[in-house]
Amino acid sequence: MSAPTLDTSVYLDRMSKVRAAMGEHDIDTVLLSVGQDMPYLSGYLAMPLERVTMLVVPREGAATLVIPGLEAARVVEQPGVFDLMPWAETDDPSAMIGNLVTGAKRVAVGDQMWARFLVELLPHLPGVTFERSVDVVGAMRMRKDQAEIDALAAAGAAVDTIAGELQRGEIPLVGKTEAEVSAHLGRRIVEEGHQKVNFAIVAAGENASSPHHHPGDRVIRENEIVLTDFGGTMNGYCSDTTRCVFTGEIAPDVADAYEVLFEAQAAGLAAATVGTPCQEVDRAARKVIDDAGYGEYFIHRTGHGIGLEAHEDPYIVEGNEQPIEVGHAYSIEPGIYVPGKWGMRLEDIAVTTADGPVSLNNSDHHLISV
Amino acid sequence: MSAPTLDTSVYLDRMSKVRAAMGEHDIDTVLLSVGQDMPYLSGYLAMPLERVTMLVVPREGAATLVIPGLEAARVVEQPGVFDLMPWAETDDPSAMIGNLVTGAKRVAVGDQMWARFLVELLPHLPGVTFERSVDVVGAMRMRKDQAEIDALAAAGAAVDTIAGELQRGEIPLVGKTEAEVSAHLGRRIVEEGHQKVNFAIVAAGENASSPHHHPGDRVIRENEIVLTDFGGTMNGYCSDTTRCVFTGEIAPDVADAYEVLFEAQAAGLAAATVGTPCQEVDRAARKVIDDAGYGEYFIHRTGHGIGLEAHEDPYIVEGNEQPIEVGHAYSIEPGIYVPGKWGMRLEDIAVTTADGPVSLNNSDHHLISV
Repeated sequence: MSAPTLDTSVYLDRMSKVRAAMGEHDIDTVLLSVGQDMPYLSGYLAMPLERVTMLVVPREGAATLVIPGLEAARVVEQPGVFDLMPWAETDDPSAMIGNLVTGAKRVAVGDQMWARFLVELLPHLPGVTFERSVDVVGAMRMRKDQAEIDALAAAGAAVDTIAGELQRGEIPLVGKTEAEVSAHLGRRIVEEGHQKVNFAIVAAGENASSPHHHPGDRVIRENEIVLTDFGGTMNGYCSDTTRCVFTGEIAPDVADAYEVLFEAQAAGLAAATVGTPCQEVDRAARKVIDDAGYGEYFIHRTGHGIGLEAHEDPYIVEGNEQPIEVGHAYSIEPGIYVPGKWGMRLEDIAVTTADGPVSLNNSDHHLISV
Repeated sequence: MSAPTLDTSVYLDRMSKVRAAMGEHDIDTVLLSVGQDMPYLSGYLAMPLERVTMLVVPREGAATLVIPGLEAARVVEQPGVFDLMPWAETDDPSAMIGNLVTGAKRVAVGDQMWARFLVELLPHLPGVTFERSVDVVGAMRMRKDQAEIDALAAAGAAVDTIAGELQRGEIPLVGKTEAEVSAHLGRRIVEEGHQKVNFAIVAAGENASSPHHHPGDRVIRENEIVLTDFGGTMNGYCSDTTRCVFTGEIAPDVADAYEVLFEAQAAGLAAATVGTPCQEVDRAARKVIDDAGYGEYFIHRTGHGIGLEAHEDPYIVEGNEQPIEVGHAYSIEPGIYVPGKWGMRLEDIAVTTADGPVSLNNSDHHLISV
């Protein structure tokens, strides 16, 4: 799902910033294919298929979009941003790309490029050192402009509507399977304006102790926790929120743990001010859970960046010293998972402004009995 | 969308065949991640996210599934097929994978593995030569067993039902946008039993001259051709069919070209007998179109393999000398595209048996006026 095509001036500006970043990182050529870096820079999203599409960006000179001939008609040309180089079914596109890269010593490749394209290029590029393009393009993509923040906020408001329905008991749970509730959430995600459902995790009772549980035939019963984590892509930008509800009177052990989770999520969010290293945000949330004695049950990082992709930089994880900047957008989503018993997670998307972090998800943060 | 989990004996058998193929191709280690090779061999589908999942298959000894700790609970263990090696959020999974590959000289990597995983591995694997795993695993995946053929046939029958509705005029076209008709086809694909829509191309009039046209706001009018190309994934296996209809009395130039297309598609299908090189199948379809004077308008290969993925080996393209074998499944889909005027394509999925090719799509092959 690509973002809407923007004015050529936006792509020219981004391309110029990428070239500056290439200079800073001593990168001669950036190669982008499947994934969101290419549309971010050119407006064109490569089809995730075996015919290679490759945007070749040298530090000096024109960029080239190498593309299967039968897809050339789909490209919205952007004068000055890239030249088009279609290849025919019997051409060798790897050789064509190799020729465009000739002389480069350090080449940065897109994260989600298929490895087959890189493996096929390797013989054409002896002596080249490969780096990840995320270190060049990622820093730009982390800093969202106002139009991007507005798009994230609109997607966030749409999933908040659905979370509200869940919390008011308007989405049937008891007696339904996890898979049925997941399908219901998926339909609502599209009805609320997303073009695409990215995920709709529904995990009941003991299944909620698996953070990425795949919703299945398990029937939701009375008196248990139900974890829902759902989101999609709306006009190119992603939503992602997690809320839990309890089907009956909340069990005391669950209520106690949820109080801790609630405080941890608030602490993580509050910590995400300009200049704070990402790992300090993780630590702020984790400390609340550790101090309450649940530390062994918080088995993942606190969050991930979000934008054109559901997961992107910056990652809110121990070891990431990247400081939070104005325009960074990320999830804050601590969890507590007791294997075989229950699990819980509370997740908002937030964006940092000069005045501090602002949550883009504003449905009720409490564990509600439905 | 992963295929249903099979008996452990199936994975043991496939793993044993892969090791034999590794011997033939002088491959020391196969590395699989995102994509369908991993579930084909192990039953486990990696999430397409930034936390690496990697199945490491040495030619001798146990295979290892390196997996993010928070996803380990989702794995259905397959005793004897692989050992599980979960990594924690602060571990370095590339180093862990590098250690498992130590000593390998020739390593085959999965086609759709994210390039970031390979780039991160490169410093851990100096002196290694990389190959594409498709040359090892692909030959096996090309030869479908009866259960796989049955799954492809079921998915094919489901899209034939929808094609029939289109041809009987039961799907409204005139006055609708391409995007609306695409959404209609998408809903029907799911209602007919697919778990996932892979694509639903709808292209009207001049838009049909772009083979991978993205359905948009163009309103379908009377007296024009409408090309539809749609498919999804049902129980792990893909459907894919193309039919064109005409909204009114068929224009003579379109009717003439369609007669040629009809004959070309039949000729391609008939050629796909055991032992015939793929390029000869392409030539058989192309010759009909060339001989009728439309050669310059058939701008793509004749077809692609299909199975767990919508596009996989064998590709029906000039230059591919791979002989067709029993159990190969592939599309036969010639097209004629006159830029700015109209386009047409006719596509079936077929499987080759000892007695010859059998089409899995059996809706009407003619251009029908609706």
